[in-house]
Amino acid sequence: MSVYLHDIPLNQAQAKFQEALQDADLWRVLSVEEIPLDENALGRVTAEPIWAQISSPHYHASAMDGFAVRAEDTVGAQPSTPIHLRILNSQFPIPNSLIAQYVDTGDPLPDWANAVIPIENVESLDENNQITNAIRKPSSIRIRASVTPWIHVRPLGEDIVATQLVLPAGHILRPVDLGAIAASGHQSIKVSRKPKVAILPTGSELVPIGSKLKSGDILEYNSLVLASQIKQMGGEATRYPIIKDDFDLICEKVLEASQTHDLILLNAGSSAGAEDFSAKVVEKLGQVLVHGVAVRPGHPVILGMVKKGIGNRNSETTPISQFPIPIIGVPGYPVSASLTVDIFVEPILAKWLGRKQNELQTEEAILTRKIVSPAGDDDFVRVAVGKVGDKLLAAPLSRGAGVITSLVQADGLALIPSGTQGIDAGEKIQVKLYRTKSEIEKTILAIGSHDLTLDLMAQFLAEKNRRLASANVGSQGGLVALRRGEAHFAGSHLLDPQTGEFNISYIRQYMPNIKVKVVALVGREQGLIVKKGNPKGIKSLGDLATRSQERSVQFVNRQRGSGTRTLLDYYLNQLNIPHEYIAGYHQDEYTHLGVATAVASGRADCGLGIAAAAQALDLDFIPLFQERYDLVIPKQFIEFLSPLFDLLVDSRFQEAVSQLKGYDVSVMGTIILEDE
Amino acid sequence: MSVYLHDIPLNQAQAKFQEALQDADLWRVLSVEEIPLDENALGRVTAEPIWAQISSPHYHASAMDGFAVRAEDTVGAQPSTPIHLRILNSQFPIPNSLIAQYVDTGDPLPDWANAVIPIENVESLDENNQITNAIRKPSSIRIRASVTPWIHVRPLGEDIVATQLVLPAGHILRPVDLGAIAASGHQSIKVSRKPKVAILPTGSELVPIGSKLKSGDILEYNSLVLASQIKQMGGEATRYPIIKDDFDLICEKVLEASQTHDLILLNAGSSAGAEDFSAKVVEKLGQVLVHGVAVRPGHPVILGMVKKGIGNRNSETTPISQFPIPIIGVPGYPVSASLTVDIFVEPILAKWLGRKQNELQTEEAILTRKIVSPAGDDDFVRVAVGKVGDKLLAAPLSRGAGVITSLVQADGLALIPSGTQGIDAGEKIQVKLYRTKSEIEKTILAIGSHDLTLDLMAQFLAEKNRRLASANVGSQGGLVALRRGEAHFAGSHLLDPQTGEFNISYIRQYMPNIKVKVVALVGREQGLIVKKGNPKGIKSLGDLATRSQERSVQFVNRQRGSGTRTLLDYYLNQLNIPHEYIAGYHQDEYTHLGVATAVASGRADCGLGIAAAAQALDLDFIPLFQERYDLVIPKQFIEFLSPLFDLLVDSRFQEAVSQLKGYDVSVMGTIILEDE
Repeated sequence: MSVYLHDIPLNQAQAKFQEALQDADLWRVLSVEEIPLDENALGRVTAEPIWAQISSPHYHASAMDGFAVRAEDTVGAQPSTPIHLRILNSQFPIPNSLIAQYVDTGDPLPDWANAVIPIENVESLDENNQITNAIRKPSSIRIRASVTPWIHVRPLGEDIVATQLVLPAGHILRPVDLGAIAASGHQSIKVSRKPKVAILPTGSELVPIGSKLKSGDILEYNSLVLASQIKQMGGEATRYPIIKDDFDLICEKVLEASQTHDLILLNAGSSAGAEDFSAKVVEKLGQVLVHGVAVRPGHPVILGMVKKGIGNRNSETTPISQFPIPIIGVPGYPVSASLTVDIFVEPILAKWLGRKQNELQTEEAILTRKIVSPAGDDDFVRVAVGKVGDKLLAAPLSRGAGVITSLVQADGLALIPSGTQGIDAGEKIQVKLYRTKSEIEKTILAIGSHDLTLDLMAQFLAEKNRRLASANVGSQGGLVALRRGEAHFAGSHLLDPQTGEFNISYIRQYMPNIKVKVVALVGREQGLIVKKGNPKGIKSLGDLATRSQERSVQFVNRQRGSGTRTLLDYYLNQLNIPHEYIAGYHQDEYTHLGVATAVASGRADCGLGIAAAAQALDLDFIPLFQERYDLVIPKQFIEFLSPLFDLLVDSRFQEAVSQLKGYDVSVMGTIILEDE
Repeated sequence: MSVYLHDIPLNQAQAKFQEALQDADLWRVLSVEEIPLDENALGRVTAEPIWAQISSPHYHASAMDGFAVRAEDTVGAQPSTPIHLRILNSQFPIPNSLIAQYVDTGDPLPDWANAVIPIENVESLDENNQITNAIRKPSSIRIRASVTPWIHVRPLGEDIVATQLVLPAGHILRPVDLGAIAASGHQSIKVSRKPKVAILPTGSELVPIGSKLKSGDILEYNSLVLASQIKQMGGEATRYPIIKDDFDLICEKVLEASQTHDLILLNAGSSAGAEDFSAKVVEKLGQVLVHGVAVRPGHPVILGMVKKGIGNRNSETTPISQFPIPIIGVPGYPVSASLTVDIFVEPILAKWLGRKQNELQTEEAILTRKIVSPAGDDDFVRVAVGKVGDKLLAAPLSRGAGVITSLVQADGLALIPSGTQGIDAGEKIQVKLYRTKSEIEKTILAIGSHDLTLDLMAQFLAEKNRRLASANVGSQGGLVALRRGEAHFAGSHLLDPQTGEFNISYIRQYMPNIKVKVVALVGREQGLIVKKGNPKGIKSLGDLATRSQERSVQFVNRQRGSGTRTLLDYYLNQLNIPHEYIAGYHQDEYTHLGVATAVASGRADCGLGIAAAAQALDLDFIPLFQERYDLVIPKQFIEFLSPLFDLLVDSRFQEAVSQLKGYDVSVMGTIILEDE
């Protein structure tokens, strides 16, 4: 059993797969089907060029409500010398008469006519040559201007000329395309068949969405994400029920799927662990082409071809053309799984559908934080992107392959190509954008201390068509980021041990020479987050220190530079407790929820944090201190942030915040400092 | 009856409609429905914020296949001083022992453990302390490096912490969002209900798609385009069968639709002509708010509110809140109809769905041709957009409201705001792009003389992921455009009367100082396009002239600066025929197909053009001259155009061209001129 995978470079892996598909004559549009021309054709891909069968309009049509005339009959008409035209009552012109005939917009022009005079430019006359209201059926009309031939006429073929190319093959149909196809005389349309993709989730630890969970259970939602991706790419996905880790069972299901699908995705089990059967399954039913690709996240990918159905061919001696069903062993981590489909499946579906590959807009952005990357891998890094002043910034999100929220929050994907060991903060990188630039220009970048109010703020700002992307780096980190021009505002609650005042001295220290406005967001309680029922009977910081000497209380701290840590240090100092007495003082978390999670999971007995975080995870809370959480805003962004200022005086927002435990909204919106 | 509409400005019209919807309490999400979390949720809009019900992972999970350990047990392990850890066979640790336990990726960490050592970093030992292959069940393991706490562990809540905001309300669901929602403990999701939109096509002249057409019939495809737009915007459309122009019948159908729909689109009849019933219908069933909007194309728009169902309320005395169904009278021209839906319906559907409005990316482009616009109107001009060198260019397409192909070909929409009478060529305009910038950067802009081969070229280039956008301005116009840097290449067939040579002297004259490569595309026959059977017995240019003196042959010419006109003038000169002898010499068409169409429709008896155009419209052709059609390419675009050069040596392309009548492909690709 091979414990190590032999990763090959991404482009080689793709080329190998493509070659196998070519050998199996599968590197082309799968097949063509004719469908009716209706709304369901939307998004389908034309399989053949569409040539016009008829012209549009298919006759000379009046472009206005008015009177059809012969332009030559109108020559000489002037305001002072009007011309009278007799209204024609049959379809044949009267010899040697000046004539006109009423036409509605869209009516065919009579054979004898070559121009139209709009109704508002004529005087309708009755049989006594008096002006009448009988617009459509006067006896004659009077005109006071001549017209040129073909005016107010839509000539035959103005829009479409029979035989011209209406749309090329490989075109994804949009609403107006359907109109043009109809106008050119078609009532059905040949499109590429939707590729059928089977998604087989395997793993004894998997349970369906919505299951009541016990430790070790993993919710099987990859098949939902993958199926939705396939649907979005124009394919048709089948989600199979969860298959236990059983080699024979997996083989059976793969063969079953191969009979009715064009591509099989075997999700998880693609690595080389004890229960990773995917490679062995592909080996048994066909041929493994690639096992391991030098790409992150997602390197344990399997690319292979398997036979169709349950025939009894010998896979050792059978040529690849006998294995007509491509199969991909997709890694189990959700980020890896989703990116694997983007990287390997999208080009195949594009080819099978005959469309060009989906391509994201690429923009150059400035990296806000150093990225370290394995030199041998193509490394796809999810980034949040925002525009601060003139600079487009890319802030790396969680690198964890298990962190699906990093994909949810991502505004784009940066590729750190193999051969690069990393990229420094401040350097330029190319980012493929998931959003349009105008969306990104509406993104408010917040940085600094974490507060639950920011989640509520994100919700309320979304209603105002603004997106809040917040990065948690602690209060000091936020001020430093503002100085570097990396965010629009920072949340901060730094207590100055000298003055007992919040934030101002730190702002002057960390962002000198930057004019700011500082506005209070909330007053809030900080205290000790402890397990439900407070089993260790902790009541104060003092308790904590004493007991921790006996190693009986495990503390979890916030990271250096965070306001909460400043607060802890301030009060430990006041109580003369050396931090060596606190077990876990050096164990850092980056958010209040992180601290609460550490306590809830048993990793720690207590930590300093806010009441709301304790409430969120159903923990107990021992209130200790009051503090103020401010928004620090460089003055240049005040106008950009006006939707945010609106929120601070919005009673709906205030009420929503006050429903969180331990928050005081009475200070909200108070201006703490405003530079000239 | 009011013949003139009173157009009001667009923003006033929108504000009036919004106010009426607010009065009727319809300016909000229509209603909320709970749907299962599956692929059908894709594209739906969250109606409420989604807060995490559980954490993910919901336990401390091993991030690797390997051995769970206590980090403190590993302290001191070094290459030279390995540490042995006993494999634990029960779930309880052995007091005072250094222990380890096998875990697969995703397995819960045992309560006593706080780190994982990957399998590849351990030596598995059997009961005799010999290295073994029994990876999962050795007796002990040997390690040669210490590990830090929580390494290779995915702590509880690494991805999602219970209670955190997963997604805000008003979010359009993407594949990864569905994964994150599942991961946070949901199995259903509250989304906004899809608004139901009724589309009622009215008009006695309308016939269904696919009908055999007679003069005056109009294919009813607007409802297809509108329904597809509604679908794309997230609504549900019902297409009603065509309704004749009958006031009572239209009223009846509107009332019927009002019972089961949220919005009614009454297509056509929105103007003020004799058979335009829409305004009267809305008046009878409710209230007309706006009739006529100062916007082009599309000004005869009706905005109104009607009652629901067939109750018997008196509309005169009834407050607006009693008219709960918005109705829009949509103009009949296809471009007007489609843009009316974009302008008036999209903001309403966005509000009803609770999502933000679709917004197109705006870019600044240089206008290639002067646009004249009525000063009082907001004028939406369809443009082709391409990048030539560093310049983003916008070339106005047909302005006709009936020309749906102008929307098909459009890469973007430029707004000429009211108050502006026009914009000059070379000025900058803002263009809302229908395509991504990377698509636009792949667009090849061709300009100059029209040839049917260009349609085939477009099809073949599409297969190479290039888009060909061609503008027909005649050969000379194309050379002038190249000089101005407005296209990548020009098609030209200008015969020099002095030298009898094609193109070169004109290139030097019209684009001096520009280095070019000139490549032959095709040799082709020019001749007279005449009606089927040649009823007037035309055999030569001479015939034409003689007869035209008797006014019995009507000619149609090509525009000045076109190669075909040069050819005509050259031979008329040789034959000593003054062009005054040719009836219709001054009647211009801009393309070969335009000439053929004029002949087919009876507007002219003959015109000079290419055989393929005659063949296309089933006309007869009298061959007269041979000419060469060249591609003129500024040298700076040679690399960009490499897919085009590939085509010229592609036998599939050559064969396709040679199947058109009158083409000689033997010259294809011959270099006529290449500047150093």
